[in-house]
Amino acid sequence: MPTISKKGINIPSSPIRKLVPYADKAKQNGIDILHLNIGQPDIKSPVESINAIKDIDLELLKYEYSQGSYEFRKNLCLYYSGHNINVSPDDIITTVGASEALSFTMNSICDPGDEVIIPEPFYANYNGFAHASDVKVIPVTSKIEDNFALPSLESFEKKINKRTKAILICNPCNPTGYVYSKEEIISIANLAKKNDLFIVVDEVYREFIYTDLKHYSILEDKMFFDNAILIDSTSKRYSLCGARIGFIVSKNSNFIETCLKFALARLSPPTLALIAANKALNSDQKYIDGVISEYSHRREVLIDELSKINDIEFSNPMGAFYSIIKLPVKNAEDFAKFLLTDFSINNESVMVAPASGFYSSENNGEDEVRIAFVLNSERIKRAVNIINIGLKEYTG
Amino acid sequence: MPTISKKGINIPSSPIRKLVPYADKAKQNGIDILHLNIGQPDIKSPVESINAIKDIDLELLKYEYSQGSYEFRKNLCLYYSGHNINVSPDDIITTVGASEALSFTMNSICDPGDEVIIPEPFYANYNGFAHASDVKVIPVTSKIEDNFALPSLESFEKKINKRTKAILICNPCNPTGYVYSKEEIISIANLAKKNDLFIVVDEVYREFIYTDLKHYSILEDKMFFDNAILIDSTSKRYSLCGARIGFIVSKNSNFIETCLKFALARLSPPTLALIAANKALNSDQKYIDGVISEYSHRREVLIDELSKINDIEFSNPMGAFYSIIKLPVKNAEDFAKFLLTDFSINNESVMVAPASGFYSSENNGEDEVRIAFVLNSERIKRAVNIINIGLKEYTG
Repeated sequence: MPTISKKGINIPSSPIRKLVPYADKAKQNGIDILHLNIGQPDIKSPVESINAIKDIDLELLKYEYSQGSYEFRKNLCLYYSGHNINVSPDDIITTVGASEALSFTMNSICDPGDEVIIPEPFYANYNGFAHASDVKVIPVTSKIEDNFALPSLESFEKKINKRTKAILICNPCNPTGYVYSKEEIISIANLAKKNDLFIVVDEVYREFIYTDLKHYSILEDKMFFDNAILIDSTSKRYSLCGARIGFIVSKNSNFIETCLKFALARLSPPTLALIAANKALNSDQKYIDGVISEYSHRREVLIDELSKINDIEFSNPMGAFYSIIKLPVKNAEDFAKFLLTDFSINNESVMVAPASGFYSSENNGEDEVRIAFVLNSERIKRAVNIINIGLKEYTG
Repeated sequence: MPTISKKGINIPSSPIRKLVPYADKAKQNGIDILHLNIGQPDIKSPVESINAIKDIDLELLKYEYSQGSYEFRKNLCLYYSGHNINVSPDDIITTVGASEALSFTMNSICDPGDEVIIPEPFYANYNGFAHASDVKVIPVTSKIEDNFALPSLESFEKKINKRTKAILICNPCNPTGYVYSKEEIISIANLAKKNDLFIVVDEVYREFIYTDLKHYSILEDKMFFDNAILIDSTSKRYSLCGARIGFIVSKNSNFIETCLKFALARLSPPTLALIAANKALNSDQKYIDGVISEYSHRREVLIDELSKINDIEFSNPMGAFYSIIKLPVKNAEDFAKFLLTDFSINNESVMVAPASGFYSSENNGEDEVRIAFVLNSERIKRAVNIINIGLKEYTG
C-alpha cells in the first residue's frame, strides 16, 4: 500500500469546518443550525458585482494574467490610495483568496523547517498553510484578560533565531476581534526590521472597526517597505467569499518577483471572480458603510446577550467579526459537538468553532470557542440564548 | 534586508510564459503575435456554461463546500461512467484547476526531499508544484525518435529508492502529444503497485485523441484502486481555462481524506466557476465532438506544414494539442526570443515555448520548442511559415 506523507497526516483539520458532519446530521434530523462557526457573511454582495456577472459579454472563458489583469491591479491601487497606502500595479499579485496569498508568501520566504512567529490565538488555517509548506509556526500567546492585545516585544524577541523568517499578524484580528494600534504595529514592524525579518500583515478586515480606532496599515510607512507584506482579499469587505479573489501587496520587488513565479506555475486566478471583484472595488461607499453599520449593530447585540451568561469571559471585538469566548467547560469542542448532536430549542441549534485549533501551543484554548457574528441580530439573540441554556444543560 | 527562500530562488520560471515581456513589447510595436506557446484554446466555451453565468440567481457569492458541491461531484460521476470509470462523489475533491489538484497530491504523498519519477519532457509546471512542495522530480527521458513513447520499465526501476513516492504521467501527454496505450498504462501501474508507489495520471486531455487509439484511464481497472490518483480538469475539454476548476479522483480513501484537509485549509473552489463547469458537463455531446474534429483538422494542417520545413524533427501528436519540434539551432530559447524581437512577416510573428523547461535533466531539450495547435488552420499555416522563414534568417 502506498503511504501518505507525514505532513498530510499531521496537518490539523480546520476547527471551523471539522464539526460539519454533525451539523449535517442535525439538519437531516430537522434541526436548523445557526452558523456562528464560519466567517461567511449573510450580507448581499455588491449589486455591481452580480450585475457585471449577469452582463458578461464573452464566449470564451480564457486564462487571466497570472498576477491578475492590469486593470484590476490598477483599480486596487486606487482603492488603497484612499487608505493612505501608495502602491503601484507592479507591487500586487492577485491570488485565489487570501489563502493562496499566504501560501505564496510562505513558499517565497521559507524553506522547510523555517519558522514564522504568530501571536496566538490566530486564524486556524495559518496552520494549514504552514504545514503545506513545512514551515514551523512559533506561537506567542496573547491573553483574553488583555483582550488579546499584542504580547510584549520581549516575548517575540525570545523566539527569534536563525530559522525565523517572519512575524505574521492579522489586523483587525481573526479570531479575537482585536485591532492593533499604530504604536503596536510600528513596534512589531521595527522588531522585524531590526532582525531582517518579514512582517506579514493580514488586513482582510481593514474596514471592520467598531471603535474610534483608525486602522493603521503596515504599508503606510516607507520605513517598512523592505520588510512589509500585506495580505488582502475582497471576500469579507464585499461579501464575496465564494469569488476567491485575494492579493499580495509588497514594495519588496524581490519578494513580489518570487511570488510571481509561484503564481505563473498555477497559471491564473479565476476569470469570472475577477470580474466580480473588480466591480466591487467601484461599488458605492454607501455599500461598505452599510455593511460596517450592520456589523456594528450585531456586535452590540452580541455583547449585550453574552453579558447575560454567567461564568463566561469573552474578548471585546473592536474589529473583524469574531469573538473568543471562554466557557465554564473542560472541553469546548465536546460542548460544541453536544450543541449539534444533543441539544436544540424550538428545533434550532448553534454551530461554533472550538478555539483550540486557533492555538498552536498544546492545551491552550481548550475551554474556548470562536464565534463569528455574521448573522442578523435576531438570529444572534437566539444563538446566544441557545448557548446559554445549552451550557446549563451540559454542565448541569 | 529579509531573505527569499531557497525554493523561491530556485523555482524555474514557466517556459510557457517567460517570454511574455518580449511578446508584449512586440505588440506595442504593432506586431500581431500568433500564440503557439500556451494551451489556451480559441474555441468557444459551451453556451450552456456562459448562459448559466448570465442567468445566475443569487445575491450573495458564498463559499462553496471545500470539496465542491455534492451536485457537481455527482454530475462528474455520471460523466466518468461514460468513460468506463466508476467512482462516487466521495472519491472526488474539486480543486482550483488541475494545478491545485497536483499541489494537494504532492503535499498528501510527499514530505520534503521525497521523489516523484516523471518521464521527460513533461508539463513544465509539474516542476513548479514540485518545488513549492520541496519534492524532487526524478526524470526518465523519453525520446523524440520513439515519438516519446513510455521509456523502458527498467529505466524507471533504476530510479526507484526509499524516497520515491510516486510515478507521474500525463495521458494524452502535454507536451509531446503521445497517447499511452492500455499496455503501457498497465505496465507502469503494475510497477508502481509492486513498489507501493502511487501512480498519478493527469488525464485532462482524455478526449483529445486523433488516431484509432482508445484512451485507457488509470481508474478503469480495480487492480490499481489503492495506487491510482487521477488528475483532471474542465479547462481544456470545455474551453474553460479561466474558470479554474479541476479535480482529484481516487478510490484510496486515506489519500482523499488527506487531500480534503489541504482543501479545507484553503476554504473553497470558486463558486461562479463551479456553476459554469457543472453546466459544461451537461453540454451536448456534439460540443465535444465538434471540438475534437476541429483539433483533428488543425493537427493535419500542422503536420503538413511542418513537413515542408527542412532540418527539423517533430513528434507526431496522437493526442492533446501539442507537439515537440527539434530545430536546427543550438539554443531554441534564443530563437523563440528572436521571433519576438527581430522577426515578422506582414507585421505578424509567433510565440513558441522553449522546450528545455519541459525537461528536468540539464541540457536536454535545448534545441526543441513546444507548440500548441490551438489556433485555426489558417493561422497555423501562417505561424509555421513564419517559423520556417524565421529559421532561415536566424540560421543563415
